[in-house]
Amino acid sequence: MIDRHGKFKVGILGGGQLARMLIQQGQKLGLEMHVMCPKVDEPAAQVTCHWFQGNPRHEEDIIRFMSSVDFVTFESEFIDGQQISRLNKKARCQVNPSPLLMDQLQDRWSQKNWLMQYRIPTAPFMLIENSADLLAAAEKFPQGFVLKKRRYGYDGYGTFIISPRQSLLPYQDILKKTPEGFIAEAKISFKRELAIQLGRSQSGDIAVYPLVESFQQDQRCLWVKGPIHHRSITALTGKIKKLLKSEKYVGMIAFELFDTSQGLMVNEIAPRVHNSAHYSLDALSVDQFSMHLKCLIGEKIKSPLLRQNGFAMLNLLGKSSAEPKWSIPSQLNFHWYGKTENRPGRKMGHLTALAKNPSAALNQVLESKKEFSL
Amino acid sequence: MIDRHGKFKVGILGGGQLARMLIQQGQKLGLEMHVMCPKVDEPAAQVTCHWFQGNPRHEEDIIRFMSSVDFVTFESEFIDGQQISRLNKKARCQVNPSPLLMDQLQDRWSQKNWLMQYRIPTAPFMLIENSADLLAAAEKFPQGFVLKKRRYGYDGYGTFIISPRQSLLPYQDILKKTPEGFIAEAKISFKRELAIQLGRSQSGDIAVYPLVESFQQDQRCLWVKGPIHHRSITALTGKIKKLLKSEKYVGMIAFELFDTSQGLMVNEIAPRVHNSAHYSLDALSVDQFSMHLKCLIGEKIKSPLLRQNGFAMLNLLGKSSAEPKWSIPSQLNFHWYGKTENRPGRKMGHLTALAKNPSAALNQVLESKKEFSL
Repeated sequence: MIDRHGKFKVGILGGGQLARMLIQQGQKLGLEMHVMCPKVDEPAAQVTCHWFQGNPRHEEDIIRFMSSVDFVTFESEFIDGQQISRLNKKARCQVNPSPLLMDQLQDRWSQKNWLMQYRIPTAPFMLIENSADLLAAAEKFPQGFVLKKRRYGYDGYGTFIISPRQSLLPYQDILKKTPEGFIAEAKISFKRELAIQLGRSQSGDIAVYPLVESFQQDQRCLWVKGPIHHRSITALTGKIKKLLKSEKYVGMIAFELFDTSQGLMVNEIAPRVHNSAHYSLDALSVDQFSMHLKCLIGEKIKSPLLRQNGFAMLNLLGKSSAEPKWSIPSQLNFHWYGKTENRPGRKMGHLTALAKNPSAALNQVLESKKEFSL
Repeated sequence: MIDRHGKFKVGILGGGQLARMLIQQGQKLGLEMHVMCPKVDEPAAQVTCHWFQGNPRHEEDIIRFMSSVDFVTFESEFIDGQQISRLNKKARCQVNPSPLLMDQLQDRWSQKNWLMQYRIPTAPFMLIENSADLLAAAEKFPQGFVLKKRRYGYDGYGTFIISPRQSLLPYQDILKKTPEGFIAEAKISFKRELAIQLGRSQSGDIAVYPLVESFQQDQRCLWVKGPIHHRSITALTGKIKKLLKSEKYVGMIAFELFDTSQGLMVNEIAPRVHNSAHYSLDALSVDQFSMHLKCLIGEKIKSPLLRQNGFAMLNLLGKSSAEPKWSIPSQLNFHWYGKTENRPGRKMGHLTALAKNPSAALNQVLESKKEFSL
């Protein structure tokens, strides 16, 4: 039993929908949930009385916030891990996932090397620092390649798909303007995109979430369905567990996968709660947000159980800047993020359906789209 | 589709756990959730940035709060319905359930007459205004009777069970000190206590929740399990639907029932979200808090669907004033209310389990009690 449970203060750096759902689930667990973000009308600041006005890049703000709580976590991997780690020498709270680990994962070059180190299959890649590297990539990857900014790329931003024999000139320009540099990855032909998430607790227990399929449109996730079966997932999960153990990772972590004719390949790692597991709020015995927090505070954890044999989650993406209108589908679970402005492509909320199998659940959420004008 | 959905402001009068769960579920629906209560550390005030410091009995506070939102609802039936109704002539928001209806339901005498009017079975009763009435009750109910304060009785408080041939003297004293007066009800022998909840929307649609069994200890609910089948529930639900329609009731309403050898009898009505349906947060497609709010704002509603064939909910009741300790059972749903003080008998949180049948779910929540020191 944990002693001062009801007095634990958990702080989230960042005020978007991931922070919002962490806060909402943390409150159910009896945690005092704090958030630091610049504005009170951000999604996460609306759902707690413990809003700390601060700039997540401002050192004084970070120290003051971290000093006011027992545990700190993040809603985004785009933090300055070196800085957070240094500042916490003053603040002395428990920060997880480890900021130095996040710093490594944030850099696609070191993330890919990390995968190699643990023999986790991933697309062939190379570092791109100058025009000569670009030409070398075109030669190395005759089927085309993907140019990805080493840091801070997001939902297609900072990512360029380059076809065979395409002119490299515009990218030479982009390269000059991007001090972080890029990596090039072989373009992978895949049947579908999958994702899997795991949580690892302070005490080293690991919870594995079901494998899901995730469908992207315009480089943004449109829907997720599951559970999905794949003959190699157990082997892959075994390797991922080794990685989490060796690196003493604490919290939820998501792996985006390609399902290819050569087997499963890891596309990207997100060291945080992830859009591909939002379904877990309604479909599993333990959602990813509660699990992340349980990992942080040292609760015992187990792999979650399915509530029904199929589930699907649909992202409600903005299509304009007009005021959204909707009718809530009467049997689906509706999660709105409370964003003050609608924008094309913006994640405004999501819907979840449970059903007797994944396809039936997917049909339900797709059918419900007509109830929304976004 | 509803136009200004994301801009709807809903206010709750009262800051306990029912208000807290209404707020948490309302935020998921995209509603701006406000609460009025005296202190910022009350369960509901912790989970929104829209806390309005005010005394729910203070006219100026009520008017200011009601004027600042579009919809108002309650977490307790112990409001002054006449007052709220009068004040809303200035504030002009939509208040539901209707305060005048709540005023009637709050009075056990008129609540019982209401049940009679709709031919809903309930224990025989009489009004107790003086010592002569008490003697008449002892004669009318030779098997014993229950003396219930007409207004503001709660969880056993204001309720006295009087056995046959018991001295009535102490109750004559209590009677003199209780200006609200009492009713006397025949003591009913029952096999078990059941409960059912319904929601009725602005547009007149009615959603029916599953019948559940609720087990009381020391006049407090210890656990709930369901769904329960009973041959007469459809007939009873039919009568309740007529009542809700005639009275133009809007929102969730709970009926506590006795399962007797003469059939189902209504024990009490609670015109609000109710402890006996807390399981719905995890076990149904639409929980009672979301349903209550959907009814208020005019969303279309349907009876919720079960996620699994059995569920059970255990109240985590305080046993001392010591700081509670716990380990969260790894596969159950845990809801802590964030109360600042533990007290014997106080509802501090609840646990929900889903399983293949109600008994299996009940075993799971009962088994988990050892993880809590309250």
